Amino acid sequence: MFGFEVLHKDAATHARRGVLHTPHGDVPTPVFMPVGTAGAVKAMPGEALEALGARIILANTYHLFLRPGHERIERLGGLHRFMAWRGALLTDSGGYQVFSHRDLCRIREEGVEFRSHIDGSRNFISPETAMDIQRSLGSDIAMVFDDCTPYPCSFADAEASMERSMRWAARCRRRWDAAGDRSRGLFGIVQGGVYPELRARSAQALAAIGFSGTAVGGLSVGEPKELMGSIVESTLPLLPWDRPRYLMGVGTPEDIVRAVAMGVDMFDCVLPTRNARNGCLFTSQGRVLIKNAAYAEDQGPLDPACSCSTCRRFSRAYLRHLFLAGEHLSAFYNTVHNLSFYLDMMRKIRESIELDNFCNWLNQIGIERR
Amino acid sequence: MFGFEVLHKDAATHARRGVLHTPHGDVPTPVFMPVGTAGAVKAMPGEALEALGARIILANTYHLFLRPGHERIERLGGLHRFMAWRGALLTDSGGYQVFSHRDLCRIREEGVEFRSHIDGSRNFISPETAMDIQRSLGSDIAMVFDDCTPYPCSFADAEASMERSMRWAARCRRRWDAAGDRSRGLFGIVQGGVYPELRARSAQALAAIGFSGTAVGGLSVGEPKELMGSIVESTLPLLPWDRPRYLMGVGTPEDIVRAVAMGVDMFDCVLPTRNARNGCLFTSQGRVLIKNAAYAEDQGPLDPACSCSTCRRFSRAYLRHLFLAGEHLSAFYNTVHNLSFYLDMMRKIRESIELDNFCNWLNQIGIERR
Repeated sequence: MFGFEVLHKDAATHARRGVLHTPHGDVPTPVFMPVGTAGAVKAMPGEALEALGARIILANTYHLFLRPGHERIERLGGLHRFMAWRGALLTDSGGYQVFSHRDLCRIREEGVEFRSHIDGSRNFISPETAMDIQRSLGSDIAMVFDDCTPYPCSFADAEASMERSMRWAARCRRRWDAAGDRSRGLFGIVQGGVYPELRARSAQALAAIGFSGTAVGGLSVGEPKELMGSIVESTLPLLPWDRPRYLMGVGTPEDIVRAVAMGVDMFDCVLPTRNARNGCLFTSQGRVLIKNAAYAEDQGPLDPACSCSTCRRFSRAYLRHLFLAGEHLSAFYNTVHNLSFYLDMMRKIRESIELDNFCNWLNQIGIERR
Repeated sequence: MFGFEVLHKDAATHARRGVLHTPHGDVPTPVFMPVGTAGAVKAMPGEALEALGARIILANTYHLFLRPGHERIERLGGLHRFMAWRGALLTDSGGYQVFSHRDLCRIREEGVEFRSHIDGSRNFISPETAMDIQRSLGSDIAMVFDDCTPYPCSFADAEASMERSMRWAARCRRRWDAAGDRSRGLFGIVQGGVYPELRARSAQALAAIGFSGTAVGGLSVGEPKELMGSIVESTLPLLPWDRPRYLMGVGTPEDIVRAVAMGVDMFDCVLPTRNARNGCLFTSQGRVLIKNAAYAEDQGPLDPACSCSTCRRFSRAYLRHLFLAGEHLSAFYNTVHNLSFYLDMMRKIRESIELDNFCNWLNQIGIERR
């Protein structure tokens, strides 16, 4: 049975140290989930992910629905088996991707019609089919199908969009419950744009329906950073305390640390993997753009404080060379490092909460540098 | 000190089981050398190469000369250290690449002027600078700078080209010896196009100069397979028996097995790595084009007879999906398998020579299928 426990609450902030119980193992929180869009974390072999201690990753329903198809994956034994991933899997509902091209989709109360970004074919996803798809994939945590409100957006439009999301959330809940499987979790998603009042109403509606966890969605879509921070800060206290809280699509190391202090338990973001492929690397000394000429003959490791296989083995000069030569291995070695950086950071965050010194650690690490 | 020993001669063919002694370890022969063009075997992490038991790889002087530059690599401690490779390294001389765009180069007796394929800059390589570059890289085996005769080519042109290569070989020998380092090997390269008489004169000239090993070059450049086979067959007996013989740029599994039977000890080819990236996979049951619809729901491993990490972990259906989705991991998992196939094949070849049943094995494996 899916579950969550808060093991320890930080003394000085709202940060919590917890654990998610899933059919594919326990996941310590706060946790960062690497993004495996198409059934593979880009440029990161599963074995390397395991070696870094990743216990949960995210997969994108939208991409897998279009290719290779959820029914095919179900016939092949489900997504865990398909991609040979032993840990837990969270699937988004596809809503975010469907709505990310508003011009390519038609929203009705029933659901959304959209065109495939691969072959232009017409497709339809409703709250009910989104549940069926995620059940076929066999994810440990499914997300409700929501209308992801764009930014900017008027109050009236954000309100209509949020209310549709809440009606859809109730339909998702009914469809999910009809299958009678309580071993997997279903999370609601708070919408409401940048309007605290709408966010509060959304949180209330979700709590009334009842979910295994609550996500805050529709952020990191172009709004100013401060606005995102204040929305998270005002929304978090309204979410059930005994359920995991997940801030979707966030973010930079700085964003994550701040959100943990507000009481967020789960994160996902393409930043470490995408930046790795673009040669932007996270280090204890700040971000490194590996193509810079300054690294041409730099024999030092990418991050002297890091013990990942990339930092143990290669110099900045070599990583720069691989990037400039367009070698596949550049993406691989860089991704190993960036994910190692993120997962290491989460490990340190968890330890510091356990030791009641998250606040001190926060001040010490100076992640704002550069 | 660089050296070579023939440990065992097959009873029924010219195949030999030997060992190369290099400053970076012993290398059992016959050996296939994965190609690490730009200081990295494409899509193949060094750790994975080591795990497959690779003891020697090839690096391309031409590419490293242009980017990042041999002098930079020397300042960074040499190529082994730069790419964190503990095994042996063979560097080609750059000749093949320089001449592969004949329209972009001007050949003089002194050397070759050519334009960079990266930035169009003018460059010059002579037999002497080719030796200096390879010394800077610190390779365990260097190759003479030769004029790689194209195909087709008239007898007169092939003769002039071969004779130039032999004069250059003598200059390479002198330059190499001037440095007084006998720990590394220098190989001569037989040229002469498709003319056995020219090949014989070339082999004789190289033997007179004296090299640590002999390569057969200028093949696999477009000539019919049978012609390649007959040239190798007639040339091999003319090469010093107690020195390693290296067939450059060859080839398919079938080509390699046949050449081993003729007495070749060393091979290199981009085929396993390039084909891997193109989704063409070598298996015990023949070649598999992984994009084929037949594999869409194939739950079996790529090659049931293979124990590589790709075959242990993933289905053909998943490998097909990764290829079609354009995932980086497709290149990685496919390359692991193809190199595993090649290195495994070489291991079996060596074992069968030791057991005097290379001939039987040759008949059994049926590598001609498909």
